[in-house]
Amino acid sequence: MSLSLHQTDKKESLYMQVYHHYRELIMERRLPARSRMPSLRKCAEELNLSRTTIESAYLQLAADGYIIARAQSGYYVTDIASLEPVQPKPRNAALPEVRYDFASVGVDRESFRFDLWQRYIKSALRQNDRLLSYGEPQGEEDLRQVLADYVRQHRNVVCSAEDIVIGASVQSLLQLLCPLLRERQTVSFPTPSFVQGSTVFSDYGFEIHYRNKDCDIIYVSPAHMTKWGEIMPVSRRMELIHYAGTKGSLIIEDDFENEFVYLQKPTPSLFGLAGGHNVVYLGSFSRLLLPSIRISFMVLPPSLADEYHRRSDYYSQTASKAEQIALCQFIRDGHLGAQTRRLKRLYSQKLKLLLHEVREVFGSSSQIQIGAAGTSLALTLSCPADGAELKKQARTRGLRLQILKEEPGFVTLLLSCSSMPEEDFAPACHLLSQIMSELSSPAPKA
Amino acid sequence: MSLSLHQTDKKESLYMQVYHHYRELIMERRLPARSRMPSLRKCAEELNLSRTTIESAYLQLAADGYIIARAQSGYYVTDIASLEPVQPKPRNAALPEVRYDFASVGVDRESFRFDLWQRYIKSALRQNDRLLSYGEPQGEEDLRQVLADYVRQHRNVVCSAEDIVIGASVQSLLQLLCPLLRERQTVSFPTPSFVQGSTVFSDYGFEIHYRNKDCDIIYVSPAHMTKWGEIMPVSRRMELIHYAGTKGSLIIEDDFENEFVYLQKPTPSLFGLAGGHNVVYLGSFSRLLLPSIRISFMVLPPSLADEYHRRSDYYSQTASKAEQIALCQFIRDGHLGAQTRRLKRLYSQKLKLLLHEVREVFGSSSQIQIGAAGTSLALTLSCPADGAELKKQARTRGLRLQILKEEPGFVTLLLSCSSMPEEDFAPACHLLSQIMSELSSPAPKA
Repeated sequence: MSLSLHQTDKKESLYMQVYHHYRELIMERRLPARSRMPSLRKCAEELNLSRTTIESAYLQLAADGYIIARAQSGYYVTDIASLEPVQPKPRNAALPEVRYDFASVGVDRESFRFDLWQRYIKSALRQNDRLLSYGEPQGEEDLRQVLADYVRQHRNVVCSAEDIVIGASVQSLLQLLCPLLRERQTVSFPTPSFVQGSTVFSDYGFEIHYRNKDCDIIYVSPAHMTKWGEIMPVSRRMELIHYAGTKGSLIIEDDFENEFVYLQKPTPSLFGLAGGHNVVYLGSFSRLLLPSIRISFMVLPPSLADEYHRRSDYYSQTASKAEQIALCQFIRDGHLGAQTRRLKRLYSQKLKLLLHEVREVFGSSSQIQIGAAGTSLALTLSCPADGAELKKQARTRGLRLQILKEEPGFVTLLLSCSSMPEEDFAPACHLLSQIMSELSSPAPKA
Repeated sequence: MSLSLHQTDKKESLYMQVYHHYRELIMERRLPARSRMPSLRKCAEELNLSRTTIESAYLQLAADGYIIARAQSGYYVTDIASLEPVQPKPRNAALPEVRYDFASVGVDRESFRFDLWQRYIKSALRQNDRLLSYGEPQGEEDLRQVLADYVRQHRNVVCSAEDIVIGASVQSLLQLLCPLLRERQTVSFPTPSFVQGSTVFSDYGFEIHYRNKDCDIIYVSPAHMTKWGEIMPVSRRMELIHYAGTKGSLIIEDDFENEFVYLQKPTPSLFGLAGGHNVVYLGSFSRLLLPSIRISFMVLPPSLADEYHRRSDYYSQTASKAEQIALCQFIRDGHLGAQTRRLKRLYSQKLKLLLHEVREVFGSSSQIQIGAAGTSLALTLSCPADGAELKKQARTRGLRLQILKEEPGFVTLLLSCSSMPEEDFAPACHLLSQIMSELSSPAPKA
């Protein structure tokens, strides 16, 4: 081994010289990837240096990724010399861009006043003093106060700011809620489709059931009973509360899309109907504002609120403080109310128009299901191919579909109007129709 | 019961008249709180209206919070008439404002370039198209790419964007990680002080130990071994990796405050030293940017990354998309590096100055512990009172303290310099000294 050392240098330089020597050997592949480095003892002898000096050099080489240590076996050269900078994988490179998206869960691009929201965020970012510290684990108090007023006024959820917990998503809130429900074991969901919810309960060891009202916990979305927006009739809400009350079950009311109940007055909340007993109320803003604004909240009934307060310091807040400050002022200034009214009008009109187009294009050969809320309808068509094939074919033509159900010879699609512009409804329906008939009578191969 | 009904009105008006009639009775307290409403049958008979009409009225009254339904017993008047608007509770109303805060975990107000961050957030908020949809469950791909480059460069953590998961906080990430570690049962933390971490593991059913290297999972913060910033020596890092490798344990490396290792070169990461095997790396920006910016990330070793990808769609992203977009560009433009260098300089200088002041004021009567990193020192003083009493006394004088340890006649305080301005160090130390001597010789009562 040749290594010219300048004896006048300090010790640190000695180890850095050893370091540079080996780095060069490795990068020029003279010490190939996966080869074993000389032992500390051997290297120290050969270079006539202390083991400490060699060890410092090796540790720095390891820290910089040139070698790695293996338990009880020594140091080995990594493949750093052949390492390409990591490139992002091209995704679905062969597929054309999505022209029409019936499967989107985004929001309409005309629906949100970006300029307004920007103004509130800017104003929040000027509150330097508040942003310099961690937020309250429970969520910012002024926002919780505003939310308490909001749900009392709009959903008859009578509560105080102390009963409200803010989180980045409904899922984050369920992760706080589950540990408070230790004595319960079973939970019922309306359908298997809300995996973000059932996964949390299953992660915490709960037994998952579907549509089983004898469970210890009953999770419901009264304004979103089906994906096409069927809502729970008031009589069934009363029945559910009575039954749960008799059995001592806890109801978790996910008020998802209640704002989009078009065809009648918004129905009363379970929390309100039950007088706040044994119901946890969950609210979210992803459908009202932007899906990318991560703020949800839950209202806890008194016993659970007490239990939460005993543990609240163990949990950190997930929602952005700046966005909480902005949302608080946004609601105070009445913009949430205005936004809700605007969206309700917009989506109600779009859904009607989509229904009209679907009827026009698919007529009597189809079955259409539509609820009293939401932004989607379900369309059942006769289809010779299976759902996966239809979805794939459509995607290669720039049309994104969501399959809801399959039965022999039939497929049910969920068509969402939320983020598609109205003028695309007709061409998107015609393209779908065309794909369906091509699947029925495949073009003869050349 | 008197109720003048206009027979020409439509049915909806009928039920609204019943509604208004009862609302008035309730608000004027002629139907007092907690009294039972007449049964539907009786009320329908008396008013000569259908039960459906009465039921509609009652449901609306319930929806608006005037009455509540009790299981199998009927409707009861709420105390809405006496309900005051909910006021936020005054907190510690008797206490004076905090003048000097030695207990803060915030950041220095001079340290953060708010103007710069505002510019990046504004730019992110202009990306309307991206903000209209939900984010990727794993976190935005461009930010993950930038983070992969960043940790490879600064921490020798060689990984791809696919191995990185973004979340609002270290806690949110642990909530994703725990379900991936089902076959493991025990976890060791260095001290009981990181409750945000141990709580998650305990919620998921893990057995918690402290400083027990024979556990299935070993949670360590190598740059924050003690609250006063002791760091794990490189030799112990190697030992830990070897031992964990032999036992098949998983190391979770929380790289908290590694950027603030002043007294020597930043030490190599465990992830890097172990070549990415059996180590999960956790990084966070709350101490580098603002505590209120909720973005953390973890780097998963290959086997866990695969398992995560099988489940990633079940989890929603917790971090704000706008803040992710802003942070991505902020790092790309080199501001994170500059911010880190600025903070390291600032805190190193502040900590030295605080050490100087503490020595000056408490001299030989005290014991001081200071580590190689962080923003705090530990100060042990003789103290006749107990810690709680000292803390309370100090708080009434506007000084906020954090008690680290108590022994008969002695108390150890953790003094943080992070958010206190330098010019306050001397007066804060003198005030503390004064409180200590008053506790030793209480002023005679008048």
